[in-house]
Amino acid sequence: MAALFRGSRHTWLRLNKHVDFAFVSTRSMASKTPVGFIGLGNMGTPMAKNLLRNGYPVIATDVFPESYKELLDMGAQVMDSPAEVAEKADRIITMLPSSPNVIEVYTGPNGILKKVKKGTLLIDSSTIDPAVAKEMAVAAEKMGAVFMDAPVSGGVGAANMAKLTFMVGGVEEEYNAAQELLTCMGANVVYCGQVGTGQAAKICNNMLLAIGMIGTAETMNLGIRLGLDPKLLAKILNMSSGRCWSSDSYNPVPGVMEGVPSANNYQGGFGTTLMAKDLGLAQNTATNTKTPVPLGSLAHQIFRVMCSRGYANKDFSSVFQFLREEEGQ
Amino acid sequence: MAALFRGSRHTWLRLNKHVDFAFVSTRSMASKTPVGFIGLGNMGTPMAKNLLRNGYPVIATDVFPESYKELLDMGAQVMDSPAEVAEKADRIITMLPSSPNVIEVYTGPNGILKKVKKGTLLIDSSTIDPAVAKEMAVAAEKMGAVFMDAPVSGGVGAANMAKLTFMVGGVEEEYNAAQELLTCMGANVVYCGQVGTGQAAKICNNMLLAIGMIGTAETMNLGIRLGLDPKLLAKILNMSSGRCWSSDSYNPVPGVMEGVPSANNYQGGFGTTLMAKDLGLAQNTATNTKTPVPLGSLAHQIFRVMCSRGYANKDFSSVFQFLREEEGQ
Amino acid sequence: MAALFRGSRHTWLRLNKHVDFAFVSTRSMASKTPVGFIGLGNMGTPMAKNLLRNGYPVIATDVFPESYKELLDMGAQVMDSPAEVAEKADRIITMLPSSPNVIEVYTGPNGILKKVKKGTLLIDSSTIDPAVAKEMAVAAEKMGAVFMDAPVSGGVGAANMAKLTFMVGGVEEEYNAAQELLTCMGANVVYCGQVGTGQAAKICNNMLLAIGMIGTAETMNLGIRLGLDPKLLAKILNMSSGRCWSSDSYNPVPGVMEGVPSANNYQGGFGTTLMAKDLGLAQNTATNTKTPVPLGSLAHQIFRVMCSRGYANKDFSSVFQFLREEEGQ
Amino acid sequence: MAALFRGSRHTWLRLNKHVDFAFVSTRSMASKTPVGFIGLGNMGTPMAKNLLRNGYPVIATDVFPESYKELLDMGAQVMDSPAEVAEKADRIITMLPSSPNVIEVYTGPNGILKKVKKGTLLIDSSTIDPAVAKEMAVAAEKMGAVFMDAPVSGGVGAANMAKLTFMVGGVEEEYNAAQELLTCMGANVVYCGQVGTGQAAKICNNMLLAIGMIGTAETMNLGIRLGLDPKLLAKILNMSSGRCWSSDSYNPVPGVMEGVPSANNYQGGFGTTLMAKDLGLAQNTATNTKTPVPLGSLAHQIFRVMCSRGYANKDFSSVFQFLREEEGQ
Repeated sequence: MAALFRGSRHTWLRLNKHVDFAFVSTRSMASKTPVGFIGLGNMGTPMAKNLLRNGYPVIATDVFPESYKELLDMGAQVMDSPAEVAEKADRIITMLPSSPNVIEVYTGPNGILKKVKKGTLLIDSSTIDPAVAKEMAVAAEKMGAVFMDAPVSGGVGAANMAKLTFMVGGVEEEYNAAQELLTCMGANVVYCGQVGTGQAAKICNNMLLAIGMIGTAETMNLGIRLGLDPKLLAKILNMSSGRCWSSDSYNPVPGVMEGVPSANNYQGGFGTTLMAKDLGLAQNTATNTKTPVPLGSLAHQIFRVMCSRGYANKDFSSVFQFLREEEGQ
Repeated sequence: MAALFRGSRHTWLRLNKHVDFAFVSTRSMASKTPVGFIGLGNMGTPMAKNLLRNGYPVIATDVFPESYKELLDMGAQVMDSPAEVAEKADRIITMLPSSPNVIEVYTGPNGILKKVKKGTLLIDSSTIDPAVAKEMAVAAEKMGAVFMDAPVSGGVGAANMAKLTFMVGGVEEEYNAAQELLTCMGANVVYCGQVGTGQAAKICNNMLLAIGMIGTAETMNLGIRLGLDPKLLAKILNMSSGRCWSSDSYNPVPGVMEGVPSANNYQGGFGTTLMAKDLGLAQNTATNTKTPVPLGSLAHQIFRVMCSRGYANKDFSSVFQFLREEEGQ
Repeated sequence: MAALFRGSRHTWLRLNKHVDFAFVSTRSMASKTPVGFIGLGNMGTPMAKNLLRNGYPVIATDVFPESYKELLDMGAQVMDSPAEVAEKADRIITMLPSSPNVIEVYTGPNGILKKVKKGTLLIDSSTIDPAVAKEMAVAAEKMGAVFMDAPVSGGVGAANMAKLTFMVGGVEEEYNAAQELLTCMGANVVYCGQVGTGQAAKICNNMLLAIGMIGTAETMNLGIRLGLDPKLLAKILNMSSGRCWSSDSYNPVPGVMEGVPSANNYQGGFGTTLMAKDLGLAQNTATNTKTPVPLGSLAHQIFRVMCSRGYANKDFSSVFQFLREEEGQ
Repeated sequence: MAALFRGSRHTWLRLNKHVDFAFVSTRSMASKTPVGFIGLGNMGTPMAKNLLRNGYPVIATDVFPESYKELLDMGAQVMDSPAEVAEKADRIITMLPSSPNVIEVYTGPNGILKKVKKGTLLIDSSTIDPAVAKEMAVAAEKMGAVFMDAPVSGGVGAANMAKLTFMVGGVEEEYNAAQELLTCMGANVVYCGQVGTGQAAKICNNMLLAIGMIGTAETMNLGIRLGLDPKLLAKILNMSSGRCWSSDSYNPVPGVMEGVPSANNYQGGFGTTLMAKDLGLAQNTATNTKTPVPLGSLAHQIFRVMCSRGYANKDFSSVFQFLREEEGQ
């Protein structure tokens, strides 16, 4: 019945929005039915585990069979392809490295949309181009399914502890159904608007984060060379208008804060190569929307150069180290 | 006696630091003796008034006689030149537009140092190149006086309400004496280290502020074009790693916050031309210390271009407006 | 026969490259058979006219019927859609504004590939993303046709006088056949390599051009402010290592050269909005290949901002004017 | 007599410009009188040798006595300080590393101006801030001497072969006298205007050179990654609007040209650290004149970062290598 409803959703909604919502509620209440999970990497595996811990049967797949083991031990069922997952589950979460993987998993020859059931709720937590998210939503709608984008902020640690933040874009009527699952894996779930806006919010945040981090690194370095004690400078900035997350919560200068990558030789954290990828997405969306982003664009170039100079796998706050060295050293 | 002590300060300090401190205390306790004030602009006038309100006789001067009136009405004495002020006061505060003015007021033909009394405490609250502050300190020391740099953060409103923040650089032994006066005009007084570090802290803060503001403007603009509601986007950034002072306390997008320049057509606040000046100082100190500041440098260029395109007197958060307009508009 | 050959081209070539070449020659010698032309804008119309002048029957189409008139008068035949052109011609040239138009004209519901004859030679002279050119080549090959990219340098004037430069990418064996047509419309035809390299060469040239133009504008402006006569400065640069096409052939400073847009209030020439578009392509290809292009990226941002500040339709050398104005003017 | 004339030069010139010129000619014809030379580094030594070769007695000095040897062998006389040189010569050339050295050599306790004879012609070939050149001119004029700035383009090789280019700023009436000496050391001598304009021209050229070189490096790298052959790409650029000195005369890509630093592992040529210094001067003059130089500023930052990452002593075209490396390499 839900499936039938979904196929004619848009016309029908105009007639009777209330009933539509009721149907949605029906399905999402029919919870603890299996949830599909595609993409069992560093992030996907702990996310899927948290679904299992919350009592949801999980039907999973990944291109690398070795990723299955932990989930199998916890009782998950494993399929050979996204299409097979789609045959078994009417709620599916995907967590993939980049846009081409998402396109393949959804629209490829063994993709979800080859076998998706009408009314299925598809939630993509990958970080990808909002334009691709929109394309997937259109493709899903043609098959009678609903696609939402729900990228995360927070790293592997937050994934393990179910402390991720999800930024969700898609049809508002489906938000409750998505939220039910996402709250098993995250501490914050924010509805951002139409499909693609979850990605937009993620990209925007990370662009500003990148700018703030490089800015903090430049500023701390300049202050140190001008004779300021780094801890004192951080304190002054943090009580003044220079304050930002990178200065007060993730300071890139070794010795200023405890428990951050700069205190641990820039290991762990958020790798420069991942930041460069996100800035590439920001750059592409800015170019495509003719939006000037001068600092975002330069930040992208700086992390890109860092990737090729040995910083690819260090935390992105290592930009302090990159900029710090003096001539002759 | 204090004068004698100061003339031989450095040798003497090594012998008996405790006694030195006692002497300093003596002078600073001899309070309510006249304080010189040079530079009666938009900032200087309310600062001098706050000294008067705290019971300090003020002996002032300015190149523009029309600036005197208000202070005269409040009982200040007015002199014709910095040299004459220096004859009458052994504590002098200067608040001037830029480095050349400071050089003129201290070392010019009618400058302070032509008539300064030994032991005089000279506090410069202008925002200038730290290297110039150091030069002034050397020149003052030759005359047996002590120079400290104490630039402010906070604008005319904060000056009126004695809510400025002072960042102070100079000999630590003199800090108490400076603090006594500065607390009449500000809410926070921070000791930063050797002479020039007050300027360094100010410049660093404003460089990071400029970067954060342009970054916030770019990010909000990109998000809006990608379909996000600006208030929602600000909320998401402020609970995430993109958070900065410009996003959470001075958001540049009209309609997001009340009581900030963006809510008032970018009037009031901190003018683009002033920000461009501070970034010029940051640029110069970075160039002179061979410190790479890629984003700081680009921020400087952006505010510089804005100055020539009609934004000189608008608040610097108008960079949102500058970047926002779409093609064809 | 040519069609048959093309269908099995790749296998066959390995057996008998010489004969293959002979077949190609046969077709290209079978000249003066009709040539399809799709896209009759400011550039396409004079290009198609030059084919007519060289004795080639032209079968044309465009989305705007009003574009046909001139060509009809000169004897061209007009069709309703790209698909119909493809039914009538086995050599087709396309000249379109941007990637989405190319995708539509080739792969859309009434696109060329719906009706293309085996062995048809498709030459796209639009400036588009090299990745799209490659996709079109793959799609064409599936239909037994051959796609080459051949973007131009030179503007409307060069198009009128058959003085364009073509940068050609595609299978080398087809280059002669392409060259036969392109030489009717251009003075230089350069073979760049595999499909997409024509676009790559075009994008690379324009990125360096953009950088050189902004650099020249900055430099001339700085020199003028430092007291140098602009003509003298141009002369010095042009005999020194600062020399570039923008300084010696297209100087952006009014009064330095005759016959360039800067001598005519920046009218004519190459519009800022077109340069911004090409830099967007450069940016996208750089992002996608993880290539750092710091100056290219900043040049893109500068032309993007100019577009929104009233320079969209001025020649791109108006960046001098954009950067020149002084504060207060 | 010449000395007398100079002391009253400016008033006198207005009365009788023709006679003034005659006097100048008189002195400059009194050639083969000794020429002072201060600064015997890599550039200064071959320059002084070329004066000796042209029959001018040379009276030299340098802070490093070991620099004297070669010149002594060729018959030069050596003094202990600039002041002593000034006592013996009424034409003095200085070739020093940077602004502070120039200030010291001219106005320091043993500086030229302590002992300069009235009417002496002082030619500074260092590359320094035009503002410092103007200050030196004012200081020289107070002593009745004439200061001209004449920075060079061309490196050690050009200095050895007397093939330097001199860009000369200063009083036009003295240009002939300067030219007489400079032609012994260079192939081109260009009069640029009032004092400081020689430096301005040098700085402008090098800023545009830096931008062109980074732009060429980015562009070649992008083209290569897009599948273009570097030699072919260089050829296309050089026949198109992307052409610049860095692409056609000093290509930064190994294998494209012979006889340039890129063909020799970036040894020799113009060191990155020197380029960074010149860009620092350009940055300072731009900041001080409120001139926006976005690409010049970013170029400065890039060479600054390169200096700290091991490229300080490589030719500045090694920016290609700096940007080229791919992730993981």
